[in-house]
Amino acid sequence: MPHTTTDRILNFSAGPATLPEPVLMKAREAIWNIDDSGIGICEHSHRGKVFDRVITEAVADCREVGGIPDDFEILFLQGGATMQFAMVPMNFLPDGGVADYVDTGTWASKAIKEAGKVGNVHVAFDGSATEYDHCPSDDELSLTDDAAYLHYCSNNTIKGTQFFHAPTGTGPVIADMSSDMFSKPIDWGRHAMIYAGAQKNLGPAGVVLVILRRELLERCPDDLPLMLSYAAQVEKESMLNTPPTFGIYLMGQVFKWILGEGGLSAVADRNQRKASVIYDAIADRDDLFSPIAREDSRSHMNITFKTGDAETDARFVAEAAEAGMSGLKGHRSVGGIRASVYNAFPEAGCERLAAFIRGF
Amino acid sequence: MPHTTTDRILNFSAGPATLPEPVLMKAREAIWNIDDSGIGICEHSHRGKVFDRVITEAVADCREVGGIPDDFEILFLQGGATMQFAMVPMNFLPDGGVADYVDTGTWASKAIKEAGKVGNVHVAFDGSATEYDHCPSDDELSLTDDAAYLHYCSNNTIKGTQFFHAPTGTGPVIADMSSDMFSKPIDWGRHAMIYAGAQKNLGPAGVVLVILRRELLERCPDDLPLMLSYAAQVEKESMLNTPPTFGIYLMGQVFKWILGEGGLSAVADRNQRKASVIYDAIADRDDLFSPIAREDSRSHMNITFKTGDAETDARFVAEAAEAGMSGLKGHRSVGGIRASVYNAFPEAGCERLAAFIRGF
Repeated sequence: MPHTTTDRILNFSAGPATLPEPVLMKAREAIWNIDDSGIGICEHSHRGKVFDRVITEAVADCREVGGIPDDFEILFLQGGATMQFAMVPMNFLPDGGVADYVDTGTWASKAIKEAGKVGNVHVAFDGSATEYDHCPSDDELSLTDDAAYLHYCSNNTIKGTQFFHAPTGTGPVIADMSSDMFSKPIDWGRHAMIYAGAQKNLGPAGVVLVILRRELLERCPDDLPLMLSYAAQVEKESMLNTPPTFGIYLMGQVFKWILGEGGLSAVADRNQRKASVIYDAIADRDDLFSPIAREDSRSHMNITFKTGDAETDARFVAEAAEAGMSGLKGHRSVGGIRASVYNAFPEAGCERLAAFIRGF
Repeated sequence: MPHTTTDRILNFSAGPATLPEPVLMKAREAIWNIDDSGIGICEHSHRGKVFDRVITEAVADCREVGGIPDDFEILFLQGGATMQFAMVPMNFLPDGGVADYVDTGTWASKAIKEAGKVGNVHVAFDGSATEYDHCPSDDELSLTDDAAYLHYCSNNTIKGTQFFHAPTGTGPVIADMSSDMFSKPIDWGRHAMIYAGAQKNLGPAGVVLVILRRELLERCPDDLPLMLSYAAQVEKESMLNTPPTFGIYLMGQVFKWILGEGGLSAVADRNQRKASVIYDAIADRDDLFSPIAREDSRSHMNITFKTGDAETDARFVAEAAEAGMSGLKGHRSVGGIRASVYNAFPEAGCERLAAFIRGF
């Protein structure tokens, strides 16, 4: 083996983010010659047998990982969550209807702005009043009667907040799970659709995983551009045109890796431990550091904290980088420090950061 | 080196298609650890220094490869050419305007259908009358006065026809060059915009290269979803959200490879030689094989031919596969045999196919 983990560093990037090393090792082989076919994964026809197996397995493994009921369809699309911000209302917000949106910060706000170009939007919760420091409970929501749907963002990378219970809507609930997808089990009874850009927990940038209840498809207008119609995409099983084959391959390998790690319950337990190790260190050093998110909403994926002094924050980030811990700078809109520790981020890395916090 | 070309076969796939082996070798390293950063290309933040260099170099190398004038913008988008089929009219076909479309077969026809959902379309050439056997000359076009634009597909993978001169329109000319992009020099004086799905000549599926004249952007409506607005994408330099970072990396490496091969003139000369070797062999075996495209429109990228007997065609494809030549089956709508020999397909592979044709 020409490579060992010793030439890789700890990558706390908020996304694109660390991928499982065994997956990367497999991808390195597959790019040259997948499954002894004599052709690399990027070079195989999407209509051929090799890729057919790749996508069929990816769908089946996705269903197994997520415990996804049979009445949900699984799609691999493009354009990131931002494209979904527009596709959701184009497909599911009819003229004269109203969609409820929960505004928990930057990405949720962007979804609202995009939906507003398409139809009527009601902001059911406006987190800006408390600087987006938490995710609301149901009794903080002001809902429209018979909303076309309720949209929320399950984890907010920038502020570091996360929902631990899905909100209840008056219509189907649709979640942007880009930054905590498959980090814990999903309650399918409470969701009609979820979507997630791959580049945090699932794979490389350029693929969006969309999982939606089949009955929703009846709402899709017939005259949408094909690429923007969930119904058209489902009809062609994500192969309306050439799909992002490498991204689907890599995502499929990540699904297999999750299964090998013990599935979502095991992954969720580990994510909770990983986050606790860091939050505990921050609490132990409350002489210097304070967490940014409210206690009940602190994300297991993106741990945000600060010293209150921008120069000290910057020194922390710089010294951590010298110690082989990359990507700890907080988002420019928040400042401070952010440790993103998605599924593939190693537990030992969290312990190293905790020790570093204690020793700083 | 653990790998040699001996474990790879000749891949005549119409797309996704063969990539340059030196590019694949680089990608295998970069996936694990790019530029000694300790982080793989799929895992780097798109806002970080490493990816910033990747995309900056990709844009600069693209401009150098294509000899692209300064008044053209370069974008890396998602959704394949099919998404462009909708984005072009959404951005450039105003209410009450008419766009001219040249229908040279399947993909051109799909572009027409998608544009028809958005606005008024006039079919300026209908190739179906001659079974799409050629690309029209200007005097075969029936143009609208002051069309919003003229759209054509420069190479038709399914029938194997190619334009060797861009058509003239009454408005800006927009070309889908998905299957012959950067296979030969582009006449920028005759085009306002070109776009190309990457998966034939440029890189992996999941990235679309869009090159458009800056003055076109004034036409983009303000209320489009961000991802569908060329103006919004240009403003954010393809980074409106997380772009398909691996695809952009690989495309950038392909640009460097083209430069190393001597640029588009050298590549075009080689493509012409590669195609001629195969067409000559077909002509030499006119007792059995006949080309599908009309002589003046025969593609240098997709060489289509047939025996006239479906069983013999199938036997040819099967025996070629046994001899290590994969992907020669014609598209199901045409039948026969199709050899796709994009930029990265080796000249020696064309000679092997020619010998196989002569010996069949």
